Formats: sequence, C-alpha cells, structure tokens
Amino acid sequence: MIAIGIDIGGMSIKGAAVDSNGRVYDKFSMPFVKGEPGERTIQQLAELVKDYIVSQHLEGKIAGIGIGSPGTLDVEKGIVNYANNLGWNDLHVAEIMQQTLSYPIRLTNDANAAALGEAKFGAGKSYETVIMLTLGTGVGGGIIINGKLYEGNQGKGGELGHVVVQVDGEQCSCGRKGCLEAYASATALIRETKKAMYGNKRSLMWQISPEIELVGGKVVFEAAAKGDKAAQDVLNNYIKYLGEGILNYCNIFRPNVVVLSGGIANAGAALFDPLNKYIEERFYGYRATPEVKVVPAELGYDSGKIGAAALFFK
Amino acid sequence: MIAIGIDIGGMSIKGAAVDSNGRVYDKFSMPFVKGEPGERTIQQLAELVKDYIVSQHLEGKIAGIGIGSPGTLDVEKGIVNYANNLGWNDLHVAEIMQQTLSYPIRLTNDANAAALGEAKFGAGKSYETVIMLTLGTGVGGGIIINGKLYEGNQGKGGELGHVVVQVDGEQCSCGRKGCLEAYASATALIRETKKAMYGNKRSLMWQISPEIELVGGKVVFEAAAKGDKAAQDVLNNYIKYLGEGILNYCNIFRPNVVVLSGGIANAGAALFDPLNKYIEERFYGYRATPEVKVVPAELGYDSGKIGAAALFFK
Repeated sequence: MIAIGIDIGGMSIKGAAVDSNGRVYDKFSMPFVKGEPGERTIQQLAELVKDYIVSQHLEGKIAGIGIGSPGTLDVEKGIVNYANNLGWNDLHVAEIMQQTLSYPIRLTNDANAAALGEAKFGAGKSYETVIMLTLGTGVGGGIIINGKLYEGNQGKGGELGHVVVQVDGEQCSCGRKGCLEAYASATALIRETKKAMYGNKRSLMWQISPEIELVGGKVVFEAAAKGDKAAQDVLNNYIKYLGEGILNYCNIFRPNVVVLSGGIANAGAALFDPLNKYIEERFYGYRATPEVKVVPAELGYDSGKIGAAALFFK
Repeated sequence: MIAIGIDIGGMSIKGAAVDSNGRVYDKFSMPFVKGEPGERTIQQLAELVKDYIVSQHLEGKIAGIGIGSPGTLDVEKGIVNYANNLGWNDLHVAEIMQQTLSYPIRLTNDANAAALGEAKFGAGKSYETVIMLTLGTGVGGGIIINGKLYEGNQGKGGELGHVVVQVDGEQCSCGRKGCLEAYASATALIRETKKAMYGNKRSLMWQISPEIELVGGKVVFEAAAKGDKAAQDVLNNYIKYLGEGILNYCNIFRPNVVVLSGGIANAGAALFDPLNKYIEERFYGYRATPEVKVVPAELGYDSGKIGAAALFFK
C-alpha cells in the first residue's frame, strides 16, 4: 500500500509517497509564502501533488493523502481552525485539495503525524503503546495506542505539552501557567541557561557562548559535561521537570516506550542517561509496574511525512 | 446479556448480576476479613457467587464475572500484585475463582470499574469519551475511549490521581510529590481545612465543627456558603487545583465529559458551578475547542459492580 504524506511548516511544505513498510519515495516540496491566502497555498499544493503522482507513475495506486499541519484542527472536517505560524483561520484544507485530487484526504496535527511515524516505523516500531514528546520551540505530543493515533474529540487532544506540572508556574504560550512546555521546551532550556549565565558571570557557559543572545540548547550540555556547576544545575532542573512530565504520562498511559524528538533529543546520553535514571527511581507502583524506556526518535525530519501517510495504513 | 459484577473493598465484597442495559439484580455481599489469607477470601467469594447464580436461576446465562479490586493489578493475568488495604500480595484471583466457577473471569482496578459503569450507564452514557475522577481518600481515575476502558500496559495505567501538578509540592502517598491526589482528594481538602482553622481561630468553621479532629469534607462548603472568608479561600484553592487537573485531562484526551464521583462530588452546585467556570475561563484552544462539561456521577455505590460486569458488554 502507498500513500502520500505531507508535512506543512512555516518555511516550506514537504511531502513524499510512502509505502506501508515505511519506505519513503522521491520527495517534493514548495516554499511556504507568508501572507499568501491559505486557499491559494493549498491549491498550489494540490497541483504539486497531482503532478508528483503522475511523475512517479502512482496514478490509481494511492490509498490517500495524509497531511500534518500545525495549529488547532478539526480533523473530522479536515479544517485548520487556527494556525498562528501559518496565518491560517478556518481553512478548509481537505475540501480545497479535493477540488483537484480525488483521493481520500486526512488531516492531523503535525506533532501527531510525527508521533505516528515514529510509532509505526521508528523508535516505537516494536511497541503497542507509544508516547512521543517533541522538545522544540514548544512541546508537542502524540499518543499511539495499540498502533493507532489517539486524537481526542475533533482531533483536538494529545496536547501533551499543555499539561500543567507547576500550578502558578512559568507563563506558557497557551495562556495557562506552569505547562510542561514552559519547562521542557528548548525555549525553556535556553531561558534558564541565560538566567544562570546572568547569575554566574564566571560560568564556563560565557566562554562557550560569549554572546548571550545567541545561546542555543547545546551550551548547557557542553558546559555541564566539562563540570560547570551552574550548567549542571540548569540541566538537572530541566531533567527533573521533563522527568516528572514523562512519569505523569507513564501513570496515565502506562506505555511501552516514550520517544523524544526535536533538537534537545539530539543531546544523546547526556540527556537520556540521567533522564532514565530519574524516572526509574520514581516509577509508580515499583516492582509490579512494567518498565518504560525513554528513547530518542529515529526518523528525523521524515517522521511527519511518514506518519501523515501512515494515517492510511492499518 | 447478563454478567456478574463484583466490587472488592476493605470492609466488604459486594456483587450482583447486571444486564447489558445496566439493570442491577438482587445483590450479594460478604464481609472482608482483614488478616485472612487472600486465597481463602477468594475461595469463599467463589462459593458465594456459585450459590448466587443458582439461587437467581442464572446458570448458563452468565457471560462472565467481572471483578473490581483496589491495588496494583496485572489485568492480563488476573492477579492482584499488591493491595495495601487488603493485605494482598501476588494473589492469583482469576485462577482461584476458576477452580470453582467455569465462567470467564476479568479483573480490573476498582476505579476503572466505577468509571466504566458511569461511562456506560451513568453520567457518561450519552458520550463516547469519558474521564472519571473519584475524589475520596485518594484520587482514582478511569479513562473510557469510544466506550472502551483504557487500562494501559498490564492494566496499570489510568492512575489519574498520580499525576504531578506541582513539582516539589505536597507529599503524595505514592512516593512522589505534588500529585493531583495530594491536592484534590477529600484527605487533602480536610488537611487544608484544618490548616485554615488553626490559622483563623474566629472562622465559622470552628462553630460548625468545634472538634477539629472530626472535621470532614463538608465543613468548608457549609462555612463558605455562609460567607466565611477562610473557608472560601480553602475552597477556591481546592477548585483551582482540581480545575487545573481536569484541564490537563481535557488537553490530553479532549473527552466529551468529565465525571466526578466520591464524597466531595456530592457537594452539588457549590462545587460544580465554580469548577465549570474555572475550566471555561482557561480552556485551551478557546473558540475552536469542543466544550467539556464536568458533571457528578449518577450511579452511587453501584457503579463499581455495574462497571465490573460491563467488562463483558460490547
């Protein structure tokens, strides 16, 4: 079985045909033009997909077209209700695509698409129940239960970054305070890194990144590895909050595995070793509770395309 | 279709035949004798059920026997791994029952059984996806997705009370700090009531309950209704934490309804009106997000029996 998977982002729209073994065919892409009416963008995307299907000799062989989009969606109706980064409001994506393409079209949240891709063909492929957290500018999430994406009413669930772990805590982008996103995103890690630098003028972090405005997510890992106390404190605190968030999802879902993606998840053992240790030490139910491993994602930037296509795979 | 539903508690074990319309037949019960070996208790229960089936003329008409038990269970194997209140350790409940009874036997967590009962035949019966929280000595929870109980790996998920909403917060019975249970249980409400009484010697709460050791969950509601400021503060704080916990479950599951049971849920409008207001004001996604109502449970003490039997209904 073959489906088209499309990943919509604020810079570009990318896609490819994907088969039910997770193999990705030749890719296509188009720039995302900010300010252009959403209807026009989707019409162009539909034309691009139509041409791609012809050029790949896939006419009649496509089970459907899956689309991962940021924002608040109504997956049942194929509408993007609101996507701040894209400037889209109540855009009837599926309906517009359908004017050009006669294949079934399904829409899902971009974090959900990536999670489904990892669950089916990446780090979660041997497991039934998978929780994925994407640690980027924000914290996205996806829930896969028995191999199927759980999206909630209208597809508006699975907002695993917008779960308060600290009542009255740090302001979150969603309006609430103390969400996991406000502690476990790359943005939060960088915020805390800068705070620690201002508080510790002799920290090694200043040597690694003399221009504080350019500080990224790696500075704290590098300085901590070299024994910098201020950086170690930031990292330990980050692991604590992320660990508590993951423990929460373990108690709710008791998944087989938790997959982390996004820039921070590239930190390797410096993140995963202390994080798994933190979780093992605090695991609810102790001896009787099945183990949950926290592992890095494996599919990189293809996870969204693969997962969007996988909406059509059993 | 008819099944037997059994609810195991620290004082007694109760059960009844239940049909697939949720109708409860004559009930049976036996005392729970603390300190008696679990094997013996279950053997006695099996005999009681056998006699009950005969006396009700239900031989051959029973689809199965569902059992709700407190503690950490392995639902796949029908084992109670550990139940502190019952003094049970690795008790093979299904296997022991099966020595006397030839019907299929299923075990589930008692909070899950109650949630399934409410979801199928009580406050959640018109809805697909239901989250239930039981606000008692602890906080139990149950997740019903598309009419089916979600239990997680080995049935050890759905621990909705053991989700941290305040990192480094109040000590929880589970070993972690800041769980929802430590803020939203009746135990937590009473703890905060007593604290407020000690801090406000002229509070009306002292008139309502002069003996502080006897303070229950109702004192704060009664005093708050009469305008007592200290009681109102306790109640507002309770609603805030419970509200944040519920908002978390809305963002994760986007359920159709959240059902509250347990002693505190009997407080009526004094609890549900401000709680629903709190949630409406902070609902993630705003206009595009489907509404979630928080409502009281409807089945009372029968929910566990009905839900345990409902493990056998489609």
